[in-house]
Amino acid sequence: MVKLYDDERIDYLLAEDTMHIIQSPGVFAFSLDAVLLAHFAYVPIRKGRILDLCTGNGVVPLLLSRRTNASITGVEIQERLADMAARSVELNELANRLTMIHGDLKEMKAHLGHSSFDVVTCNPPYFPTPAATEHNANNHLTIARHEVYTTLEDVVKACKLHVRPGGKVSMVHRPGRLVDIITLFRQYKIEPKRLQFVYPKRGRESNMLLIEGTRDGNADLTILPPLYIYNADNTYTTEAEEIIYGKR
Amino acid sequence: MVKLYDDERIDYLLAEDTMHIIQSPGVFAFSLDAVLLAHFAYVPIRKGRILDLCTGNGVVPLLLSRRTNASITGVEIQERLADMAARSVELNELANRLTMIHGDLKEMKAHLGHSSFDVVTCNPPYFPTPAATEHNANNHLTIARHEVYTTLEDVVKACKLHVRPGGKVSMVHRPGRLVDIITLFRQYKIEPKRLQFVYPKRGRESNMLLIEGTRDGNADLTILPPLYIYNADNTYTTEAEEIIYGKR
Repeated sequence: MVKLYDDERIDYLLAEDTMHIIQSPGVFAFSLDAVLLAHFAYVPIRKGRILDLCTGNGVVPLLLSRRTNASITGVEIQERLADMAARSVELNELANRLTMIHGDLKEMKAHLGHSSFDVVTCNPPYFPTPAATEHNANNHLTIARHEVYTTLEDVVKACKLHVRPGGKVSMVHRPGRLVDIITLFRQYKIEPKRLQFVYPKRGRESNMLLIEGTRDGNADLTILPPLYIYNADNTYTTEAEEIIYGKR
Repeated sequence: MVKLYDDERIDYLLAEDTMHIIQSPGVFAFSLDAVLLAHFAYVPIRKGRILDLCTGNGVVPLLLSRRTNASITGVEIQERLADMAARSVELNELANRLTMIHGDLKEMKAHLGHSSFDVVTCNPPYFPTPAATEHNANNHLTIARHEVYTTLEDVVKACKLHVRPGGKVSMVHRPGRLVDIITLFRQYKIEPKRLQFVYPKRGRESNMLLIEGTRDGNADLTILPPLYIYNADNTYTTEAEEIIYGKR
């Protein structure tokens, strides 16, 4: 029996799925971004080690566990979220493969060593640090969404530290940060290899990007076909539906 | 009466157009890339100064002259092409607004000054310097397509030198070079602002990109909707047709 706080609920991980995840609307609930990242990232199928930084309630490790038998470690700076993630691991009986750690990604070297993961994934905070008033409004959500504790450079630096040479780093972020991401990836020797832009609808500007780089890789970037989420009538496109409903 | 060499022909600049351009299949004929660049680039409408580097047979200045009354200068390192470009200016009676210069973009400071253009456009050579054998096969085409005389860094450096602060730099290139382009743009203080990927068809990887940056601009990048060239049945898409046939 997994413990559940009053403000929490148990959701399906994906629609009509056999897996579950603990969420709380006021604390953390996963978004489409995490689902797309977990679908986009390369993962070794049978074995290996995967690290998910800024793991929140563990949504990316839980989703990745559907695609791989590798061991997956999630790191989350907010104790409440890390605890939620650990209970979701228990709920899905995945403790043999998934480990959730409460910790700061800037200080994980002693615990996780360096260059020891095949893949690192991250759905980092997207927005610059907010003003103090906004910051105080809802602390859990603010920390997950804004660069309060963690800057983009902190994240890329940690990816570089933990991924092995030749290993892959995957991230989801906003298009407005593409120049920063590419500059930092190259600075930390993670060469961008695959880039995909997500568009809410045809004819609109992109509002999300998925990027994967290889540590110490050669320069050779592919721009994948665009991914559209909604049709003109606001229903999901076939490709979005296949990802969201887990038909892979 | 404009002089025409034996291997040259006079083509329409765009389909069903009133403008013409001198080309030679063995020396230089413009491609879709130049047409898309001339459509993508911001230009001041009524006045101002525009510089087109790697201008070839002057296709981009000729196309831009349809959209603006600004003065436009083209620079081309190959004497034969610069001469072709100058004769096309004469052919279209545009000598009052268009100037074609035979010169090396690395050495134009004395002639063109610095920070004196509102817009700089460039359709540079895409490919690394070829092996000697391939290099000799067709010298004119090789120089236009390969980094024989001009590297990407030379181009970006020249853009930075000639564009005024707040002015815009537009370029067409291959997606495989995006990381280099973004890194060099930022290094030379041309902040990427608009980025569009061109796809041959739906579901395919991108094979061309259009990028515009602002000298000394703030970080704020928009990813425009994708541009598809062909429908599944190999006819032009409506949006490609409108650009190629000049229906603006």
